Amino acid sequence: MKIAIAQINYHIGNFESNVDKIISSIKKAEKNGAEIVIFSELAIPGYPPRDFLEFRDFVNKCYDSVETVAGYCTNIAAIVGTPVFNENPKGKPLYNAAAVLYDGKVQKYIRKTLLPNYDIFDEYRYFEPNREFEIVEYKGKKLAVTVCEDLWNVTDSPLYVTNPMDELIKFNPDFIINIAASPFDYKQEKLRKEVLKRNAVEYNLPLFYVNHVGAQTELLFDGGSLVMNRKGEIVNELKYFEEDFSITDSEEVDELTPVKPHNPPEISLIHDALVMGVKNYFEKLGFKKAIIGLSGGIDSAVTAVIAARALGNENVYNVMLPSRYSSEHSVNDAVKLAENVKMPYDIISIEKTFSALEETLKPYFKGLPFNIAEENLQARARGVILMGLSNKFGYILLNTSNKSETAVGYGTLYGDMNGGLSVLGDVYKTRVFELARYINKDEEIIPENIITKPPSAELRPDQKDSDSLPDYKILDKILYLYIEERKGPKEIVNEGFEPGLVKRVLKMVNTNEYKRYQTPPILRVTPKAFGMGRRMPIVAKYLL
Amino acid sequence: MKIAIAQINYHIGNFESNVDKIISSIKKAEKNGAEIVIFSELAIPGYPPRDFLEFRDFVNKCYDSVETVAGYCTNIAAIVGTPVFNENPKGKPLYNAAAVLYDGKVQKYIRKTLLPNYDIFDEYRYFEPNREFEIVEYKGKKLAVTVCEDLWNVTDSPLYVTNPMDELIKFNPDFIINIAASPFDYKQEKLRKEVLKRNAVEYNLPLFYVNHVGAQTELLFDGGSLVMNRKGEIVNELKYFEEDFSITDSEEVDELTPVKPHNPPEISLIHDALVMGVKNYFEKLGFKKAIIGLSGGIDSAVTAVIAARALGNENVYNVMLPSRYSSEHSVNDAVKLAENVKMPYDIISIEKTFSALEETLKPYFKGLPFNIAEENLQARARGVILMGLSNKFGYILLNTSNKSETAVGYGTLYGDMNGGLSVLGDVYKTRVFELARYINKDEEIIPENIITKPPSAELRPDQKDSDSLPDYKILDKILYLYIEERKGPKEIVNEGFEPGLVKRVLKMVNTNEYKRYQTPPILRVTPKAFGMGRRMPIVAKYLL
Repeated sequence: MKIAIAQINYHIGNFESNVDKIISSIKKAEKNGAEIVIFSELAIPGYPPRDFLEFRDFVNKCYDSVETVAGYCTNIAAIVGTPVFNENPKGKPLYNAAAVLYDGKVQKYIRKTLLPNYDIFDEYRYFEPNREFEIVEYKGKKLAVTVCEDLWNVTDSPLYVTNPMDELIKFNPDFIINIAASPFDYKQEKLRKEVLKRNAVEYNLPLFYVNHVGAQTELLFDGGSLVMNRKGEIVNELKYFEEDFSITDSEEVDELTPVKPHNPPEISLIHDALVMGVKNYFEKLGFKKAIIGLSGGIDSAVTAVIAARALGNENVYNVMLPSRYSSEHSVNDAVKLAENVKMPYDIISIEKTFSALEETLKPYFKGLPFNIAEENLQARARGVILMGLSNKFGYILLNTSNKSETAVGYGTLYGDMNGGLSVLGDVYKTRVFELARYINKDEEIIPENIITKPPSAELRPDQKDSDSLPDYKILDKILYLYIEERKGPKEIVNEGFEPGLVKRVLKMVNTNEYKRYQTPPILRVTPKAFGMGRRMPIVAKYLL
Repeated sequence: MKIAIAQINYHIGNFESNVDKIISSIKKAEKNGAEIVIFSELAIPGYPPRDFLEFRDFVNKCYDSVETVAGYCTNIAAIVGTPVFNENPKGKPLYNAAAVLYDGKVQKYIRKTLLPNYDIFDEYRYFEPNREFEIVEYKGKKLAVTVCEDLWNVTDSPLYVTNPMDELIKFNPDFIINIAASPFDYKQEKLRKEVLKRNAVEYNLPLFYVNHVGAQTELLFDGGSLVMNRKGEIVNELKYFEEDFSITDSEEVDELTPVKPHNPPEISLIHDALVMGVKNYFEKLGFKKAIIGLSGGIDSAVTAVIAARALGNENVYNVMLPSRYSSEHSVNDAVKLAENVKMPYDIISIEKTFSALEETLKPYFKGLPFNIAEENLQARARGVILMGLSNKFGYILLNTSNKSETAVGYGTLYGDMNGGLSVLGDVYKTRVFELARYINKDEEIIPENIITKPPSAELRPDQKDSDSLPDYKILDKILYLYIEERKGPKEIVNEGFEPGLVKRVLKMVNTNEYKRYQTPPILRVTPKAFGMGRRMPIVAKYLL
């Protein structure tokens, strides 16, 4: 049976565009002799539709769209992800389903059994888990159709008490189909391939896997749909970070030569994911131009290059906003970067605004010494100027904070924490340096001085990050153990870090929850990003 | 059996304080002849601990705390909510449990069966549902111990496929105990009492119900713990919005006279809930003083009065921030309010800052006409000045936006949308007027002119809200149908609203998701508040 895999970038709630893309792929598959074409999880509404699923009107639009798509399935079958109502009066109102379409109509819905409800996933919020198993029979073949997480209960400490493939194998299927929406992080591709391999080998079946591709606000989907033989070897692999289409004959899977392993360095995955994230954010919102506050530091430099690659260099407007505390090299370095990348830029001093604020507040500050209040006034003056330009010309402001400073609260709320999207908020400072080196691998795009000078916020004379923060190499390791690994203070100390420092860092992370609550969405590239995947109380007293 | 109910305001992650409060109540219960004392759901860590539950160190601290508490249960039993590890290798790592303590140690854990995972609830994120049922026997009595949601599957369209009381009734219990953390909204108390009554009547058992009290960031717990007889009549009811303690003999429940119904008007519930919300937010974070931008409009006026009632009038610092577009009455009305309530205030013109911003941006604004960009500059100048004072003196800035403007995006991000906590973000504008009238019920606290003048942002000459928004009476009804009732455009039009207006309002709500993503936590007083209970994609195209 010739099976087409359609790897598509969907737009949440844009039924017209999603249906158009699905129908084009059906036509292409049919034209190229495929007998069935498969689309990813919740392809019809786009993934994740989140609380739109609570609107009956929204789910009805999904039904209408599936009907439209079914009309094109007269000489070919399609499997496409969509939500369906639970007809039973008991339980959640919806199922997460795979609609099986042929002979011009919906033949059946295969419902998802295992509902991820951790990190960024909320599927138990909307869906009832399936409890009855059935096989899809088409043209004499038996298809074990599963939805994403349904194949994931194969680890040594399984998260669920049931395993759908243990049920489906009883029907003697010919192969497994998995329609997925598996969000990217830099460790995910390896894990995903291991999980799929475990299934292929354990059930001794070929496996056809279709994944989402494209960014949905903070969530990045890397694609990489694939066909695996029953030994767990990949015999066909679709592109990463872009739409793709491919046809494989299920009868030939075991004879095909395995493909060369796709094994790029982590840093290139992160780079490509971020570029796609920025690109899709703008495209899907209908915006073209970004504005960035270019400080002369490494974070805004890397953000600007990624934006230029995503949007085109001419669409990234850089503003240098020097104050009396800015060093000369800051503006020079920033200008050099803008010129290297051929991005438009302006230099706008914040001095007038900062002075006006100082004068306005002087009578009320009662002669108290210069401190964090005055530092924040500068960051906020910059924020207001950037937002003024954004509002006047329809730029989206890109936030340039990295994960290390977001973690410890080293940033000014309503100042440099502003933006519509955070590009580097899930990239630790040490990784930002790696990204800069990766960008410069063939030529000096980011001026060397930006990479080598000591990081500074330049909000008071001769300020350095190292005045108030530990060395980033140490800080990032402690943060990783606390945030990604969820280790407690004792466990982190046991890994060789100084107890006082560990305590101080963990306290900084926890006391700054209120700041992170108000940050822009952060492009997610690690298994534990700030945002929807990490949900902390603001008012609490743990490790304080 | 004499049963004590301890209704306590816990502090998330503050094990020392929570344990101290629990132990005091155990001693008090023992001293007053109680044989058992009951505490609410997840009392040990405070509810909801959210992702702290993913830290083994945090859960271990819960175990240690339960051990400490158990040591005080030598002459009395206690039931106290706490998380416990799932010893089975399959399933989620934790259970949400009620620890049963007597003879100085933990006797057993009763595990929660029904895990709410909707609106603000995420319990399936952490917990495995219980599947084995057992009764608690103590001093010859059989106690059907349940945790919160376990009693809630009694509606006509049940959310869960099992019902724990149907299992527990087989053991012939003498009464039901329910330990809860049931967050307040203005409709919740009525619903809760109906649900509890259904259980008492259906199983023909007296019911002892203990609820959380106090605010946990945005979530407000109203208390109102109670004892019900088997007819579903309330025979003992604890206080609302404050800690309380009470003892009832289970043998006497059926002879006690039902209490007078607690049936205050919705507006007084909302008022009291907001006061508690502000008070606990400051207390639990260790802050004393608030700063508010007092515009002379009704939202900031009501916010200031609520803050004064929560924190003491002397702890609420009001700043009037007039611009060239402010009407004279604005400052006068604001001053009059501050004086009525005896709150400190200052008048700080934003003119110097606004002019500096205009001059700075003039060369870059290229002669384009005054528009939203200049309006936002003013709101942001105010935001920067307020945050400057906040940073200098350690005030927390209170946000004054109401639910109507938060819904349609009528507010400036990084301007008037700033703040540590939003007091009125779940109160529609029409309700804000009701709150003002309620505050003024005995005397004119809020100057009448603030209530009666047409709402205006005063960001350009003669601006009125009604220039760009429909009448609030109509707007609020449409918003309610869309947000609280999750109705689609057709259903809303069918309720008698003009199709073009409905389309425009829904589009405003959906396009402003990005702004709400960055707003402060909002005190939740309705069944559907913006924030953790309403999760929407930012990049999407539904009803646009």
